[in-house]
Amino acid sequence: MRVLAIDPSLRSTGFALLEKVNGKICSVEYGLIRNRPEIPVSSCLVAILDRLAELIHRYEPDSAAIESTIYVQSYKTAITLGAVRGAAIIAVAERGVPIYEYAPRRVKQAVVGKGAAAKQQVGFMIRAMLGLRENPPPDAADALAIGLAHFQAHESAGRGVVTLVRL
Amino acid sequence: MRVLAIDPSLRSTGFALLEKVNGKICSVEYGLIRNRPEIPVSSCLVAILDRLAELIHRYEPDSAAIESTIYVQSYKTAITLGAVRGAAIIAVAERGVPIYEYAPRRVKQAVVGKGAAAKQQVGFMIRAMLGLRENPPPDAADALAIGLAHFQAHESAGRGVVTLVRL
Repeated sequence: MRVLAIDPSLRSTGFALLEKVNGKICSVEYGLIRNRPEIPVSSCLVAILDRLAELIHRYEPDSAAIESTIYVQSYKTAITLGAVRGAAIIAVAERGVPIYEYAPRRVKQAVVGKGAAAKQQVGFMIRAMLGLRENPPPDAADALAIGLAHFQAHESAGRGVVTLVRL
Repeated sequence: MRVLAIDPSLRSTGFALLEKVNGKICSVEYGLIRNRPEIPVSSCLVAILDRLAELIHRYEPDSAAIESTIYVQSYKTAITLGAVRGAAIIAVAERGVPIYEYAPRRVKQAVVGKGAAAKQQVGFMIRAMLGLRENPPPDAADALAIGLAHFQAHESAGRGVVTLVRL
């Protein structure tokens, strides 16, 4: 089982590819899709879509995961973040890959065992859990955490404990 | 000069193709991209992207126009609407068509001469201005109004009166 996890943001979208091999979750690749400040919004969205499409083509994930958005600074931010989420959802759905959504609380719980964890704590735990040699950049760490939450949720769903939210 | 105007919404996106021939603005086509309530969000976004791509391929507009979003019911609505806007922006930008944004006030001004117009008034004026044989459905009327605002703004920009907002 291979998952593409995405933490959308206009200027720095985090992504992670995680795989379960012999019951152990491994990081296959992770990174950032960066868009410099001078790049117009429309070009950022196309760049995010294209890069994700490329990753899906190369790694052929079975499913994808994204965080649900509960709180944002303003409506303007929500509209922009929504557009980036749209780009991510389209990249995945166009290629027939199912995409699931997880609440931020659940993502943090998957990593540190409680819902309110500091951003630093998440990065540290991710590194330990996946045996990474370096601290992943924060946006990529968030994507890795979303991927871990996805594996946990799929296990719990298999036992009938939780219902998955498919977009 | 031919423009594709879009009024994004998950279940009923309005679109309009307008053209200026001998100084007169005409409606080439308008309609709705409907998604039934049971269709998942991800499939709706792909359907909206695909339909707009098809329209761009067929009519080859020189530019596109969309309304900026100022107020929405909730953050949840803003995130969803943002995703639909993202799909529309990507459809246009992927094909190298420039896309411009107009405030709702400016769109209404273009049609009824003032910023606070009733929805019904907009539809009635649109029908008169474009010499349509029928009342266009409300979401398509909104797209037609956005297209008219775009033509007006381009004229004003040509005279140095306004600055266009390109996405």
